[in-house]
Amino acid sequence: MSTARQLKLGAFMRPVSIHTGAWRYPGAWKDANFNFQHLKRLAQTLERGKFDAFFMADHLALLNMPLDALKRSHTATSFEPFTLLSALSQATEHLGLVATASTSFDEPFHIARRFASLDHLSNGRAGWNIVTTSNPDAALNFGLEQHLDHDQRYARAREFHDVVTGLWDSWSDDAFTRDVATAEYFDPAKLHTLNHRGEHLSVRGPLHIARPVQGWPVIVQAGASEPARQLAAETADVIFAAPGNLEEGRAFYADVKARLAPLGRERDQLKILPAAFVVVGDTVQQARETRARLDSLVHYESAIASLSIALGTDASRFDPDAFLPPVPQTNDSQSSRERVLALADREQLTVRQLAQRLGGYAGLAFVGTAQTIADEMQEWLDGEGSDGFNVMFPWLPGGLDDFVDKVVPELQGRGIFRREYEGATLRENLGLARPANRFFTADQASPEKKI
Amino acid sequence: MSTARQLKLGAFMRPVSIHTGAWRYPGAWKDANFNFQHLKRLAQTLERGKFDAFFMADHLALLNMPLDALKRSHTATSFEPFTLLSALSQATEHLGLVATASTSFDEPFHIARRFASLDHLSNGRAGWNIVTTSNPDAALNFGLEQHLDHDQRYARAREFHDVVTGLWDSWSDDAFTRDVATAEYFDPAKLHTLNHRGEHLSVRGPLHIARPVQGWPVIVQAGASEPARQLAAETADVIFAAPGNLEEGRAFYADVKARLAPLGRERDQLKILPAAFVVVGDTVQQARETRARLDSLVHYESAIASLSIALGTDASRFDPDAFLPPVPQTNDSQSSRERVLALADREQLTVRQLAQRLGGYAGLAFVGTAQTIADEMQEWLDGEGSDGFNVMFPWLPGGLDDFVDKVVPELQGRGIFRREYEGATLRENLGLARPANRFFTADQASPEKKI
Repeated sequence: MSTARQLKLGAFMRPVSIHTGAWRYPGAWKDANFNFQHLKRLAQTLERGKFDAFFMADHLALLNMPLDALKRSHTATSFEPFTLLSALSQATEHLGLVATASTSFDEPFHIARRFASLDHLSNGRAGWNIVTTSNPDAALNFGLEQHLDHDQRYARAREFHDVVTGLWDSWSDDAFTRDVATAEYFDPAKLHTLNHRGEHLSVRGPLHIARPVQGWPVIVQAGASEPARQLAAETADVIFAAPGNLEEGRAFYADVKARLAPLGRERDQLKILPAAFVVVGDTVQQARETRARLDSLVHYESAIASLSIALGTDASRFDPDAFLPPVPQTNDSQSSRERVLALADREQLTVRQLAQRLGGYAGLAFVGTAQTIADEMQEWLDGEGSDGFNVMFPWLPGGLDDFVDKVVPELQGRGIFRREYEGATLRENLGLARPANRFFTADQASPEKKI
Repeated sequence: MSTARQLKLGAFMRPVSIHTGAWRYPGAWKDANFNFQHLKRLAQTLERGKFDAFFMADHLALLNMPLDALKRSHTATSFEPFTLLSALSQATEHLGLVATASTSFDEPFHIARRFASLDHLSNGRAGWNIVTTSNPDAALNFGLEQHLDHDQRYARAREFHDVVTGLWDSWSDDAFTRDVATAEYFDPAKLHTLNHRGEHLSVRGPLHIARPVQGWPVIVQAGASEPARQLAAETADVIFAAPGNLEEGRAFYADVKARLAPLGRERDQLKILPAAFVVVGDTVQQARETRARLDSLVHYESAIASLSIALGTDASRFDPDAFLPPVPQTNDSQSSRERVLALADREQLTVRQLAQRLGGYAGLAFVGTAQTIADEMQEWLDGEGSDGFNVMFPWLPGGLDDFVDKVVPELQGRGIFRREYEGATLRENLGLARPANRFFTADQASPEKKI
């Protein structure tokens, strides 16, 4: 067994895939949104591939796009994360189960309770992807006309985190004695009432559920803004990042890791996993053709709208099958414009191909053979661009099968990915310490995890 | 096959049993609160016994009792209902899965979404037990100092129901076309945005999840007050009732059923299921001894507090092993006092036995052989006291096994309980129509179910 640094791999899942053209790909499971048997098979394949976790993406409203574009997209609907992951907990044994839950439109008592319950049901495999929800359409589903502003959302999120983790610590690990002879089901000295009264939240507690198996479910965060980075450095176990290339990845990695020591946290106690869209072929050329075919399944009328927004000009007036003509600069979104122009130039894409790339998936991608993909992942790992990846598959189940059957053995052969799960819980597999109970210090814990 | 009227049977479950002494009973699964394997086995036994549904009791706070009493009780904690029932959906094929959810401390968008998701995961077996939550301790877990008053809670509950069912109707049953050739995943003409603005709630919608398999999950209600009865007559498919005896049961049944015709509802489209605690023995005497033993496992100090409250006097000053002395009348709770005195007299219980009965379970109970229990159930059914029962088991798994192995065959032999499930969904098994979609009238539905 190599002692090289090991990749951690999550799978960032929408039931039909993250790519908006995926449902039209030959062999794709286009009805997976409401077909649990498909999702069960996907989760079991991830477990066969020794993935750390299934990350369930989520929204609290129908995606905000014109109906004429939305009707092309399989992402309009899906199972709700808690019900889905609870069901998947019984179809898997090792795979982590990470649900997205919002600090803006839910109650900390409910959130603490559900994640604790999922952690018990899965024997320690739950994770909470904390999102502050910036979608104004979501607010309208919860009786709110206006969204909290960005800084207020983060202040509430921080307080929300402290309340949820405080509720998880309501009971000492050994509180439940269940002594038939003395008729004592639990020891009242090992129960703590939170009595939280803060700026945004007031929650008495205690939580009426035993302390989670992991102490606390794994805390995941995304978001790259300054308050998001600081919140993550203070509270997250895993960051789901979205750099566009290795250079950006290294800068983000260095910035966030440098924030840990001043907070008294160990550098390896926060794992940074960039999102990576991975397309596997027997040759690089074949992988590129697969991706081109997938992109071509994005409906053109939806796609061209994405390109118009990115360029800040009406792109529908261009010849779809020619290269992009010179595009005048505008005041809008210069950075996205520059990025799109560079992409068109680098890959020699026509207007149609460029639009469909943006309408499909345009973030960081590894497109090649198992060898070239493993090379790139290793370069990120060795170059301190990441601690692993949150992988997105081009279509399902085929894109996932290819990854597990071809890329995973290549990574294992290089000694940078596990052949067997190291531990029993998601925390153990990720190499994260079990948090101390802030109210009962005798609880089993490693010291480096701070509140 | 007999054409006699058929009993509908739910199981009202706390993981360790509803009886507070149950965890100390020999062979009881005292750790079932967080042991999913036990709950899976219980659900599968219920399905073997052809039960209609598993009803998950719930609270949104630690039970409100002194710690010295609470520490004796296994009811302090358990899995959260949605996560538990979602996991159980994969361990069963026919059993209905009914979760309690509060209209006072949750959001209609979340509630609509989770029940729809559970309905899809279970292929049409979800039910929603609507509660308004009268526990002031729960309010403190949700940032509220004060509870809404009773009438306001019911007004909000009614509006909440209308919003949730409106969200369930967001999509026509045939909205998802998934036409690869035309790139149309859904037909936008079959999507409806609710735009609800009411007195208590403001919810835009639409729900981003396909219409539930059952149209709407089965709506269950408890509560016996005037507004509760009217709300149930207007909106419920099932009432979980709690009469103390057949006379009370018949009065409640007649009252609620009479409310249906003026609302345009069929009499058989609302099922009334009283809670019944059932103890099975090979002889009546043996069943009584089993119950006495179970009651004796309720801790005396906790039990005597319950008796003091019921009598309106400090019962701890009485000799525990003598019969109750004359108890002076007080202004408090005269009806509960009368009922307790009658119970002590009827069953010739000592102070200790009486206290432990109250501390264990003191509602409607059938204690006897399979034959006498079936006689009583048939008397309720034929006498229009109920359409079935919500059965509670004295301890688990033994009390449930006895019911399924002994009482169920007796009921089946009399032709008043199914030998096989009639339908694929909970609605079909209960004999309830699938609700029409209020926005898309072409959806498959029977006409008698009104909003």
